[in-house]
Amino acid sequence: MHQYQRQIEIATRRQGLFEFTREVIDIVRDARVSEGVVTVFCQHTSCSLLINENADPEVRVDLEAFLKRLVPDGDPAFIHTLEGPDDMPAHIKTALTATSLSIPIAGGHMALGTWQGIYLFEHRVAPHRRDIIVHVIGS
Amino acid sequence: MHQYQRQIEIATRRQGLFEFTREVIDIVRDARVSEGVVTVFCQHTSCSLLINENADPEVRVDLEAFLKRLVPDGDPAFIHTLEGPDDMPAHIKTALTATSLSIPIAGGHMALGTWQGIYLFEHRVAPHRRDIIVHVIGS
Amino acid sequence: MHQYQRQIEIATRRQGLFEFTREVIDIVRDARVSEGVVTVFCQHTSCSLLINENADPEVRVDLEAFLKRLVPDGDPAFIHTLEGPDDMPAHIKTALTATSLSIPIAGGHMALGTWQGIYLFEHRVAPHRRDIIVHVIGS
Repeated sequence: MHQYQRQIEIATRRQGLFEFTREVIDIVRDARVSEGVVTVFCQHTSCSLLINENADPEVRVDLEAFLKRLVPDGDPAFIHTLEGPDDMPAHIKTALTATSLSIPIAGGHMALGTWQGIYLFEHRVAPHRRDIIVHVIGS
Repeated sequence: MHQYQRQIEIATRRQGLFEFTREVIDIVRDARVSEGVVTVFCQHTSCSLLINENADPEVRVDLEAFLKRLVPDGDPAFIHTLEGPDDMPAHIKTALTATSLSIPIAGGHMALGTWQGIYLFEHRVAPHRRDIIVHVIGS
Repeated sequence: MHQYQRQIEIATRRQGLFEFTREVIDIVRDARVSEGVVTVFCQHTSCSLLINENADPEVRVDLEAFLKRLVPDGDPAFIHTLEGPDDMPAHIKTALTATSLSIPIAGGHMALGTWQGIYLFEHRVAPHRRDIIVHVIGS
């Protein structure tokens, strides 16, 4: 049994979903583990993680639009507004999605389904550099 | 320290919650681990995982109805409609619930609380066969 | 590779967010693991876990208020009302947030981001004693 850990930096350019499945696949390959678990962890509170369909780009458009309607930027109900109209909605969208993911490894590969991709969900308007920790354990 | 991994196939017959706590309990027992962690992973983007109350069936009814009101099938706001009126809502409900769960094992048993059950949450109307990976690590 | 597991009891006094980052930090320190993963698991179905900002207390106020608006206590649409007007909303808020969290450990410390805190999110009005399991694996 052994472990392997790496940090990924993702540059986001706008609100929305940024796929990084390929980066996680590469780390799992470098970990040289046949069976195990990979943990993906987002070190922020205004962006989050999501596993969702990576086939039709329209899914991303609808997902982003739904969350914007559910938690509108600039909602006058919010009192935490010092960091801008998109900051408090960003914390709420983070709470409604995921900060950590755990994905089994089988036969040397992440056991993602056919249509599953791993995304960073950026909830802030301005470009950001986001840190993701990827930890692999197995044998 | 050792690992044990199995796949479960769940046949869903309609939208809603399907409990499979018993199947995970059996896999943890077969893993012969006294202390550890079990990872439950759903390989799909239109159904998800949920830990919730398994005592009163009315909880399931209210949970399913709430999510249907929050993300209505056939909402004209969606552009991804090629796969049917329940497909895009299914991706969104998946994003709002969980794709992976991590549950500690103590004294040879999953450390679920008294009222906790593990559910597959089917978000599509048509019957589906769903693949769940269960991975156990421990000693 | 070794494991270390502990239970935390958190006394909640009202609906809302209760931080217990310090308790998890202490358990990770006691586990004497340089690299690994800590799993935090909530054994209940009417409270949940959340990683969110722990700098400005107004973030907590807005987060709690948003979820109360999205899933109002006493909503007449619910049929599971036997345990009180805040019980069914509690199960739904639990479904929309997290029951388990997985956080990597690097250099002997949990790899939380600068502003991340770990919270128990109590969704019931009455005071409760809540059980959290913390499991550490690593070397």
